[in-house]
Amino acid sequence: MGYFRDLREYISALQETGNLITIRREIDKDTELMPLVRWEFRGLPERERKTFLFENVVDVKGKRYVGKVLAASHAASRKVYALALATDPTPEGIVKKWEQAQAYPIKPVLVESGPAQEEVHVGDSLLEHGGLEEFAISISTPGFDNAPYFSAGNFVSRDPDTGIRNIGNYRAMVKSPTRTGLDAKMPKHIRQHWQKYKRRGLPMPVAVAIGPTPNIGLVSVTNVPFGIDEYDIAGGIAGEPVQLIKCKTIDIEVPATSEIVIEGEIPTDYLETEGPFGEFTGYMGPPGPNLVFNVRCITHRKQPIWNNYISQFPPSEGTMMIQFGEEAADYKFLKHDLGIDSVVDAAHVEDAGRMICVIVMKNSTTPQVWQALYGACSRTVLYSKIIVAVDDDIDPRDMDSVMWALCYRMQPHRDIHIAKGKTASLDPSAVPPEEKENLQGRPPTSALLIDATRKWGYPPTSLPRREFMERAREIWEEEGLPALKPKMPWFGSSLGYWPAEIAEEAELALRGEHYVTGEKLAQQRIKV
Amino acid sequence: MGYFRDLREYISALQETGNLITIRREIDKDTELMPLVRWEFRGLPERERKTFLFENVVDVKGKRYVGKVLAASHAASRKVYALALATDPTPEGIVKKWEQAQAYPIKPVLVESGPAQEEVHVGDSLLEHGGLEEFAISISTPGFDNAPYFSAGNFVSRDPDTGIRNIGNYRAMVKSPTRTGLDAKMPKHIRQHWQKYKRRGLPMPVAVAIGPTPNIGLVSVTNVPFGIDEYDIAGGIAGEPVQLIKCKTIDIEVPATSEIVIEGEIPTDYLETEGPFGEFTGYMGPPGPNLVFNVRCITHRKQPIWNNYISQFPPSEGTMMIQFGEEAADYKFLKHDLGIDSVVDAAHVEDAGRMICVIVMKNSTTPQVWQALYGACSRTVLYSKIIVAVDDDIDPRDMDSVMWALCYRMQPHRDIHIAKGKTASLDPSAVPPEEKENLQGRPPTSALLIDATRKWGYPPTSLPRREFMERAREIWEEEGLPALKPKMPWFGSSLGYWPAEIAEEAELALRGEHYVTGEKLAQQRIKV
Repeated sequence: MGYFRDLREYISALQETGNLITIRREIDKDTELMPLVRWEFRGLPERERKTFLFENVVDVKGKRYVGKVLAASHAASRKVYALALATDPTPEGIVKKWEQAQAYPIKPVLVESGPAQEEVHVGDSLLEHGGLEEFAISISTPGFDNAPYFSAGNFVSRDPDTGIRNIGNYRAMVKSPTRTGLDAKMPKHIRQHWQKYKRRGLPMPVAVAIGPTPNIGLVSVTNVPFGIDEYDIAGGIAGEPVQLIKCKTIDIEVPATSEIVIEGEIPTDYLETEGPFGEFTGYMGPPGPNLVFNVRCITHRKQPIWNNYISQFPPSEGTMMIQFGEEAADYKFLKHDLGIDSVVDAAHVEDAGRMICVIVMKNSTTPQVWQALYGACSRTVLYSKIIVAVDDDIDPRDMDSVMWALCYRMQPHRDIHIAKGKTASLDPSAVPPEEKENLQGRPPTSALLIDATRKWGYPPTSLPRREFMERAREIWEEEGLPALKPKMPWFGSSLGYWPAEIAEEAELALRGEHYVTGEKLAQQRIKV
Repeated sequence: MGYFRDLREYISALQETGNLITIRREIDKDTELMPLVRWEFRGLPERERKTFLFENVVDVKGKRYVGKVLAASHAASRKVYALALATDPTPEGIVKKWEQAQAYPIKPVLVESGPAQEEVHVGDSLLEHGGLEEFAISISTPGFDNAPYFSAGNFVSRDPDTGIRNIGNYRAMVKSPTRTGLDAKMPKHIRQHWQKYKRRGLPMPVAVAIGPTPNIGLVSVTNVPFGIDEYDIAGGIAGEPVQLIKCKTIDIEVPATSEIVIEGEIPTDYLETEGPFGEFTGYMGPPGPNLVFNVRCITHRKQPIWNNYISQFPPSEGTMMIQFGEEAADYKFLKHDLGIDSVVDAAHVEDAGRMICVIVMKNSTTPQVWQALYGACSRTVLYSKIIVAVDDDIDPRDMDSVMWALCYRMQPHRDIHIAKGKTASLDPSAVPPEEKENLQGRPPTSALLIDATRKWGYPPTSLPRREFMERAREIWEEEGLPALKPKMPWFGSSLGYWPAEIAEEAELALRGEHYVTGEKLAQQRIKV
């Protein structure tokens, strides 16, 4: 079976796998749509979250839209993300698929035509259907965002030196029916292209694909090295080439089955203020000078579907999409680039807005632990403000499990180091917002590194041994009790320290012979 | 309506409120019973956990028991704990009830007789029904515990100097049909009594009540100052006096409706090894010299119910029962004894085995924050190894919310202090188990204190404003989507920093007038 032909086939798959909620009632695109989807991230556990499809969308002035709106389509949950990635929803399945896609990229193919150009609005007819007004672009954070924004726009640009394409997701403030802002500061790849066009004194041609197959969306938000064509990696995910068509007005190729393609250019002789917009940190991000995108042509499928990612406050679809890529990057860096054998997993905690990294180690030595902690701290100045090393009996994606490790496997004075040099970027704890401008690249910031591994043999975990928990689970299920979601650790096991004599006493007790132990202890009475 | 007359009326109330699971199949008391109940603490969220009643219990040798076994009866969940405490299941309800019970204690009354003495086994007839063998006492951690242990025994002793009673819960290893160990080291109140009997050269008379009304169980595990009669506080909880009867063989009073009463004495001229037993830390606790309890008489109701608390690995019924008391103690100490106005709550994180304390502060100053952090650290050397101060928009009982505060409201070099002087007691991270004996009260231990409050005005949280989230919740519920459990924060709100101009832009956007902002920004273009 091949990969999804288009977004619509993917939506059918979401529906068939029980991952889609369809809302048929009339919904205000700005004040109701994103708040409704937001609730699943503030009120449901991760595994119960789903993608939303809105069939009947209006704006505050009563305008109706022909097309539908999709939200949380790429990472409502791990299950949804894994479906989009065509893999199984385990951490291993996800990491492996990304490794494969990068090791075995597949080049795209150019085709003659595609549904993305079923309708074409260009030149005099550009505004016939209202330009960007034709689509139900939503306000993500009503009450604080200052406009509807593109949240799932795949911006395609081309390096004027090498001809190599870049596809990236940048949020874009809608400023007029034919103009948006664009948040793309250095070292974002599109901004690097922009610098090259600027040196040539030329505007930069750009196309935005909305609603291609989800592999395009996934490569757009994931850190692929500069100079690698994301379409190739998307092909690697799909196991088949991405089909591209030529844009109508510029020399850029876009996925043939995209729901909507917006063609235009980014001027290189001026910037405009863009923002504020809700950020993954959990706080509103400030406005600032940024790029501008001038629309020259719009093409789309009939009854086009607008796609929204839900990002902002963590956890969100946005934090999840980034998280998986960051986890894979940390793992690769520690295990392969630094060659730390004892690293077995690296996890970014979903709810923590990219700031907590947990490294899982097996049979580690203290030097390896600290190499891993300093390594993860150095890999990025943006994320991982709190980095914790744990043993492999800890679930790094369960904060309760990690906190248990912190409580009994760490002594602060011995196992903590405060490291220098994280960026203040979007972290409001560095300096007051009013003083941010004056930092000159010298923020008073730091990171917290913690070795929460066991340093010696421990007594067993105080849980029934595995065979008893397994037997009890059979009884549990036979009795029809509520479905269990086991937390690590769920059985007691040896952690290196347990004298043979008391281990034997436990075996006696299991045979109902504990009075033998009682008698032995009576013989050893201590007079006081 | 009065408080529960006896444990059986309480079980009916658990049943009626949907908090009871009855298991009718044959269950092995040692290898199946506690593992089955354990699963709810390792596999279900807190609010879904219930009390278990086992009606058909056998031992490994095929012996059948006349009575039933109850487990997780006092704190399977907050709801169950609140039912036992006769209050509502909010943190405020629980703290308030404990404050009231201590401020308005009610003295018990002595009655002529009670069902606790429906059957009496004493003297020559003590062993007629097998002594302790008569009851289905369970192994808590099969595979590691070396015997069945009393986990919910309310030990009643009397101060030989003052005559004031103490009621305390001490786990007790079953060593013979008429002898148990008893974990009661200094400064446990029963051990203080024991020292006094020892000085007199007399054994200490003791009675153990199993299955009285749950207010007795609650006061038994909660820290009531030495010299205060726990029966008085139990009366304060119930709003009516506890009815007591005289023991048959010793000058001790026990609750008249107890399921089982075990009378006997604790010798003061010798100790015996007791343990190992699974601990609240998540690890097995070591064996050590401890008290011995010699049984002289057993009385009980017909078809007596044996009560087990499920403790050991956190979270558990045991950690929950302690947690609420510790929370109330921290709050009282910080708010009232130290007089820190800005303290509004103190929480112990359920899963963390008593080692994480989160202090909630409102309009705090930095000196107040540090007074609270050092204060909470000083209140106990046993618990609270990690102490975090947060603002009142953080849910201190939700680790995700606390971690979010740590990520963006704290700079490690500025907001962390490593404090000296926690006990190594049951913390295996201090020194290897083999070296513990050599510590001589000088463990290499420390605590981590963190100020994760906002130090200045922050931008708003990146969530839709409250009215939009409220409206969306109405839609959510009208659409019949899964029940929400809102996490804090669930709406965006001002945190002190937000320029008026961008606040106005957001209002324009809500009216569909964001092109006005787009035009303004175009006028302010920045040439580059």
